[in-house]
Amino acid sequence: MSENNHFKSEEISPASNVKLPLGFEFNGISSNIKPSGKKDMAIVKTDDNLPVYTLGVFTTNETKAAPVIFSKKSLEDSNNMISAVLLNSGNANAATGPNGLKVSESSANLVAKQLGCKSENILVCSTGLIGIPMPLDPFVASVPTLVGGSSNDIVAFNQAAEAILTTDTVKKTFIKSSTVDGYSIAGFAKGAAMLAPSMATMLSVIVTDAIIDKKLLGESFLSGIQDSFNSIVVDGCMSTNDTVILMTSAKKVCSDPEEFSLLLKDGLLHLAHQMVKDAEGGTVVAKLNIMRAKNQIQAKALASKVAQSVLVRCSLNGRDPYWGRIISELGAAKVNIDPNKVSISYGDIMVAKSGCAIDCDEEKLKAYMLNNEIEINVDINLGNDNYTMFFSDISHDYIDENIKTS
Amino acid sequence: MSENNHFKSEEISPASNVKLPLGFEFNGISSNIKPSGKKDMAIVKTDDNLPVYTLGVFTTNETKAAPVIFSKKSLEDSNNMISAVLLNSGNANAATGPNGLKVSESSANLVAKQLGCKSENILVCSTGLIGIPMPLDPFVASVPTLVGGSSNDIVAFNQAAEAILTTDTVKKTFIKSSTVDGYSIAGFAKGAAMLAPSMATMLSVIVTDAIIDKKLLGESFLSGIQDSFNSIVVDGCMSTNDTVILMTSAKKVCSDPEEFSLLLKDGLLHLAHQMVKDAEGGTVVAKLNIMRAKNQIQAKALASKVAQSVLVRCSLNGRDPYWGRIISELGAAKVNIDPNKVSISYGDIMVAKSGCAIDCDEEKLKAYMLNNEIEINVDINLGNDNYTMFFSDISHDYIDENIKTS
Repeated sequence: MSENNHFKSEEISPASNVKLPLGFEFNGISSNIKPSGKKDMAIVKTDDNLPVYTLGVFTTNETKAAPVIFSKKSLEDSNNMISAVLLNSGNANAATGPNGLKVSESSANLVAKQLGCKSENILVCSTGLIGIPMPLDPFVASVPTLVGGSSNDIVAFNQAAEAILTTDTVKKTFIKSSTVDGYSIAGFAKGAAMLAPSMATMLSVIVTDAIIDKKLLGESFLSGIQDSFNSIVVDGCMSTNDTVILMTSAKKVCSDPEEFSLLLKDGLLHLAHQMVKDAEGGTVVAKLNIMRAKNQIQAKALASKVAQSVLVRCSLNGRDPYWGRIISELGAAKVNIDPNKVSISYGDIMVAKSGCAIDCDEEKLKAYMLNNEIEINVDINLGNDNYTMFFSDISHDYIDENIKTS
Repeated sequence: MSENNHFKSEEISPASNVKLPLGFEFNGISSNIKPSGKKDMAIVKTDDNLPVYTLGVFTTNETKAAPVIFSKKSLEDSNNMISAVLLNSGNANAATGPNGLKVSESSANLVAKQLGCKSENILVCSTGLIGIPMPLDPFVASVPTLVGGSSNDIVAFNQAAEAILTTDTVKKTFIKSSTVDGYSIAGFAKGAAMLAPSMATMLSVIVTDAIIDKKLLGESFLSGIQDSFNSIVVDGCMSTNDTVILMTSAKKVCSDPEEFSLLLKDGLLHLAHQMVKDAEGGTVVAKLNIMRAKNQIQAKALASKVAQSVLVRCSLNGRDPYWGRIISELGAAKVNIDPNKVSISYGDIMVAKSGCAIDCDEEKLKAYMLNNEIEINVDINLGNDNYTMFFSDISHDYIDENIKTS
């Protein structure tokens, strides 16, 4: 873990008056998959064990982890009717072949039997090292306690959020409530590396008690993910296990679907920001605004290229406003920009105009670069489309975190 | 510079009996573009100042540096007839707008006047920081000495090779001679970062005195670059200044074009390997062999994705045989692999078969990972196409080299 990480947890206090959505129970315990003995197994389930309408978005990596293969099939077979999500950290159950898939199936079966539903009503998620055979034993030993001890309070919710963490230094959670109808949306996520700007993130489970039209729900969910989990970069490495799940208990009226959509988007964005803030070895968050691109495709391609550049991330670590690397990466994206039209600013301090250096207040710039969040504004000057992406720097700590698996 | 870099220069000794190609002169001096006072300006010219048939391959980055724009135009305007290449390090003259282009033109003019040729017979190359205005003064002051002092010996050749270095710790050169016809091919290059597997590298100039059919020459040059400069990765960042130039004085018969092609390819490959060995902060070179891919496009896409992965490069730095990251990146390349068919070996030690971990001799593997060059053999098991790419690890030193521009 990064010693100098400036990010502090924004954990939801059990004493706060926020309300979790009705109809769900949570738990997080240690099952000794992690040798450290830290919490590593979590459950999110309906309180009556009955399946509810659930959406899932998964990694597009072709090396899909067993739980991803299993959960996609569960959603298909059950017509998106899910009773529980079983999650573990400490082992990704990825690149584990047919045996890995059997463990996913069997662990889902354990939960299904206890709840009295079918295994197709269960989703499973795993995160941790890739390529390590996953034993079933921890699930056999721990699922009864995990499921039996689940409850609907904030403490249990926080325990679930904690049990899916790997290299994360803090829990990532949110609860948003409708001011009009009283329903709420809550969610948690993990992820501090292997974050690439395509499809989702590591793991996240969202629950709501709002009654929402399925089509609207799907649209809100996908567009919310696009602007959140798909708009952050830590290292540009796409995970084998990325999964975002949204369960809906449909207990409370929602009279304003637009409010729901905004609350969901806010929540997802909050989780995504917490991830970039907690990036392995991260010391600073960059908010990259690509402005006046020809279209969204161009804007996203440019943002993605800049945010994934190791050299740009080195400069960020050194708090060096070296915009030359940014304009080089814009050109390397090969999406027909005109570098001679590009302006680049850090915050409101313009450092390059028409593709060339301009004089600026060096002292003000130096001071600005010391912020914990730095805005990089890039004006492509070719159209009207904007796109924002958040990314982190690369540091010695990131390397130290990743040079050895044990 | 990396303190623990294991790589030693393979500089060609003036006392050796290798022969430089006839018809060329070289020089490398300090013009104080580099504040350190180190050599920073070089010339490669024909000995009679007359233009000779010359090929150039340039970066495909849309943010093209002024010298790239100028040199591409020179080759067009002169029908590839070039008398000299003027090179400088210490400033890339990139993202410098119309003024930068004027400096490239004016510096070429200075050389052209001295040689008695047109400026379109001159190519210019720059390397160094991006976005810093390039002054003409150093060229005005130094070109007369640089061109006047050029000579055809190994000492001068080595001086030119030295003058284009930036963060490189050693000169990168080669001389290859035909055993049949006595012609030779010589070249030098620079580059220790901003090396991506698409188009060329940083800067390289190759000269030969062989008489070769133009079509054959073009084919040999492009295919040689494909297997060398296009098959190495340091950080996946494409430069604004990448340029490879091949000048032919046509003084000696070449009776076996195939031998020429092989010698040229060997020379380019030698330069490319020297670059990866001298990678900023690099402690180890990985030779990644993608085997039995469906086709070349798939093989290259897979190699490129693995070689550019920060996480794979972290593992390499830690000498950790964590193949899970490799199979994850293969899937992230999204070129229709079947991860369950993939085998991965370090050297001849297989660690994964059919996409899953297999038992191996852990002690032997640990010992193998301590080599200075590590072979990673990836069997895709879908076809018959192979592709090899060389890449380096990422270390604290790489970050230290790149966090501050000054």
